[in-house]
Amino acid sequence: MPSVPPPARAIVSHGPVGEGKWAMEQVRLRDIEADELVIRIVASGICHTDLHFGGQKEGFGVVYPSVKGHEGSGYVESVGANVTVAAPGDPVLLSFSYCGSCALCSGGHPSHCVDFNNINFLGGPDFALASAAGEGSVKANIAGRFFGQSSFASRTIARESSVVNVKGLVYSDEELQLLAPLGCGIQTGSGTIAKVAGAGERDCVAVLGMGGVGLSGIMAAKIRNCRTIIGIDKVASRLELAKELGATHVINTAGMKSLTELVEAVRAVTEGLGSTITMDTTGFLPLIQKAVEFTRPKGKILQVGTAPIDAKLDIPIFEFMVAGKQYIGAVEGDSITSESVPLMIRWWREGKFPLEKLVKRFKAEEFKEAIKEMHEGVTVKPVIVW
Amino acid sequence: MPSVPPPARAIVSHGPVGEGKWAMEQVRLRDIEADELVIRIVASGICHTDLHFGGQKEGFGVVYPSVKGHEGSGYVESVGANVTVAAPGDPVLLSFSYCGSCALCSGGHPSHCVDFNNINFLGGPDFALASAAGEGSVKANIAGRFFGQSSFASRTIARESSVVNVKGLVYSDEELQLLAPLGCGIQTGSGTIAKVAGAGERDCVAVLGMGGVGLSGIMAAKIRNCRTIIGIDKVASRLELAKELGATHVINTAGMKSLTELVEAVRAVTEGLGSTITMDTTGFLPLIQKAVEFTRPKGKILQVGTAPIDAKLDIPIFEFMVAGKQYIGAVEGDSITSESVPLMIRWWREGKFPLEKLVKRFKAEEFKEAIKEMHEGVTVKPVIVW
Repeated sequence: MPSVPPPARAIVSHGPVGEGKWAMEQVRLRDIEADELVIRIVASGICHTDLHFGGQKEGFGVVYPSVKGHEGSGYVESVGANVTVAAPGDPVLLSFSYCGSCALCSGGHPSHCVDFNNINFLGGPDFALASAAGEGSVKANIAGRFFGQSSFASRTIARESSVVNVKGLVYSDEELQLLAPLGCGIQTGSGTIAKVAGAGERDCVAVLGMGGVGLSGIMAAKIRNCRTIIGIDKVASRLELAKELGATHVINTAGMKSLTELVEAVRAVTEGLGSTITMDTTGFLPLIQKAVEFTRPKGKILQVGTAPIDAKLDIPIFEFMVAGKQYIGAVEGDSITSESVPLMIRWWREGKFPLEKLVKRFKAEEFKEAIKEMHEGVTVKPVIVW
Repeated sequence: MPSVPPPARAIVSHGPVGEGKWAMEQVRLRDIEADELVIRIVASGICHTDLHFGGQKEGFGVVYPSVKGHEGSGYVESVGANVTVAAPGDPVLLSFSYCGSCALCSGGHPSHCVDFNNINFLGGPDFALASAAGEGSVKANIAGRFFGQSSFASRTIARESSVVNVKGLVYSDEELQLLAPLGCGIQTGSGTIAKVAGAGERDCVAVLGMGGVGLSGIMAAKIRNCRTIIGIDKVASRLELAKELGATHVINTAGMKSLTELVEAVRAVTEGLGSTITMDTTGFLPLIQKAVEFTRPKGKILQVGTAPIDAKLDIPIFEFMVAGKQYIGAVEGDSITSESVPLMIRWWREGKFPLEKLVKRFKAEEFKEAIKEMHEGVTVKPVIVW
C-alpha cells in the first residue's frame, strides 16, 4: 500500500452554497484503495451540477460536509495496486465515474451505468477527504468521490474510471488549466450533438441555453458543418459569443411575451418546418415543452439540462407519433472518455474548439467570485487554479 | 385520357361501423388524373385504422359517405399520363400515400410526409368513387383515396405513390390475397423493429399488443435474432401464436391487479434491467406509461399504436435523461415501400415470415363477419377477397 498522502486544501461544503457554507479548509486524505489514485489537482472547472448538489438543504446526493468538483485536471501522485490507466507523474483529466461491469458499461455506455447515481453522487460508504484534526488521526467525516474525483481540492482521491491519461496530449500546467472542463460540461454539449444526435451537414440544430454545455454544442455543430445552427438564450452577450463560435442564427427570448414567439422564430429560419436536432441544456420545463413543438417531423429532442426531480414533460402521443419525433435523454454525451477527451483535445489543437472563449481562470481562493460570475452570466466556464 | 372505368362494388361507409352503417353498394369511378391508376382489387386487409376513421361520428379524417380500406392488392387496369410505377396488367400491392416532394419525403421518410394526414385521411377535394346513380352520370358524393387507395372496392383509383409494383415477385391471385396486408400493419410492425429500432442479437424486445402489428414485430425480432422476445397481451390464444412466431416469453396481463406486475414480469426475464426495445401497438396510455418504466437505460420505446388524440404521456424528465432512454414515434415502420414490400415478400418466401398464421380470408360480402372476428380477437388479420 502507498503511504498516506500529504495534507491538502479543499473547498468544503458544510451546507448550501447560497448560504455561504462553502469554505476553504485544510484536509487530509485517507489511504487509497486498489482501484484509486491520488491526484495533485492543477485546476477544476465549476459546473452548475456542483452548485445543484451543494446548493440544497437535502435530497438525493445532497451530503454535508463534502467536497464537490468534477472537472479536474492534474498529475498522478500515487496509484493503487490494480491501477493501470496511469502512473505517477502522468498528466490526467478527470471525468465521471462508472462501474465498468454492468450491461450498460459493457455495452459501451458508461455514462448511463446502472449504478451511475450511487457512484457519482453518493461518494460511497467511506470518505475520501477528512479534516485535518491532527497529525495521523484521520477524521473521516467529509464525503469525497463526487463524480469519482471531488476535485475542489489541491489533492484528491480519484476512482480509476474517472481518470483519462493525457500523457503525450497535454504538455503544461497552463494547458491543464484550460482543458480541465473537458470531462463534463464540454463533452456533454459536444458529445450530445456529435455522437448522440449524429449531427451532419443536412441538420438544422437548435440549442436552448448558451452556457458551457450549450456553447459546446454550438461548436460541435459547426465542426459537423450543420447548415443551420441556432443559439437560444436570454442574455445578449451569450448570444454574441454563440455567433462567434458558429451559430448562424440567434434568438433572444428576453423580450418575448409568450414562448409561442420562440416556436415561430425557430420555424422562420428552418424552412417553416423546425429544427432537425434540438438540445435542451436548461432543464426549464416550459422551454422543453416548446422544444418538442418546434422540432420538425423525424427530428430529435435531446434532453441534457437537469430538470427538477419531479418535472414531467407532457408528450401528445398521437401527434408525436405521426411526426415521428424522438425524445432522447443523454448524460455526458454518451461518452467513452478515453475517446471523447482526446478527440476534443485534437479539435482544440486544430483551432476548431476555441475553449479560450469560454474559460476564465480564478485562483482557488477566489472560488466565491468565480461562482458569482457564473451565476451572473459574465463568465461561461470559471476554472479555479490550485 | 383513359376512358371512364367500368362500375364496381364497394363497401361504402355512411356512418360509424358500430352503428351498422357500412354497406356493400354499386359505385362508379370518376376519370383518373395523370398521377393515378385504376386498380382491380383482388383483396384488402382490414385494419383497426379503417374502423377508427369509419367508426366515429365526427373528427379529423371522419368523412361520410366514404370508402375505407388501405391494405389492397390487385392488378393495374389503366394508368394516368404521368404514371411510371406500373403498367396495365401488373400485379401491385397498395400502401400509404405521400407527396414525394417535401423535406421529409425527399429525406427518405415518406411515412412522415409533412402532408401525410391530409393526403391519407382527407381524400382530397374531389372523390374517387361515386354511387351509380345512372349510366354516365357520376354522382361525386363518396370520398375515396383513403390512404391513397380506398381499397374496400372491387375496383378503385389509387395515387401513384400508394402503388408498389410486384411484377416478378408475386405470381397469383392467391398470393395477392395473402400478401395484401403487407402495405400497412405488417410493414408497421416489422419495419419498426427492424428498421426504426435497428434490433439485433443483443436486444431484449418487448411488444405490447399481439395484433397484426405486434405479431409482425415478433416475427421481425426473430429474423433479427434478438436474444429475448417478449409478447404481451391479455388474450391467451394471441400469446400462443406469439410463441409460434418467435416469442421467447409471453406475459398475460389479463389477471393482473395492477400494471406494476407487468413491470416486474418484464424485468424478471431481462436480467432485472428491462427491455432494450419496447414497441407499443395498443395506444393505451396506462400501458405506454409502464413501457417507459420497464424499458432499460439507453432503451428505446417505440410508439406505433394510435392513442386518443388528446392523450398525453408523462415523461419524468430527470429520470428519463439519466437513464438515457428514447421515446420514438413511428408511422408505417419509416418504410420506403418500394424497398420494404419486396423485403417482406422475400422473408415470406424464405419461410421466415409465416403470414399464413395471421391471415384469414373472407368473401368481400362477409366483411361484417370479418370485422366481428377481428374485434373478438379470433382472427388477427382478416382479408376480404373481391
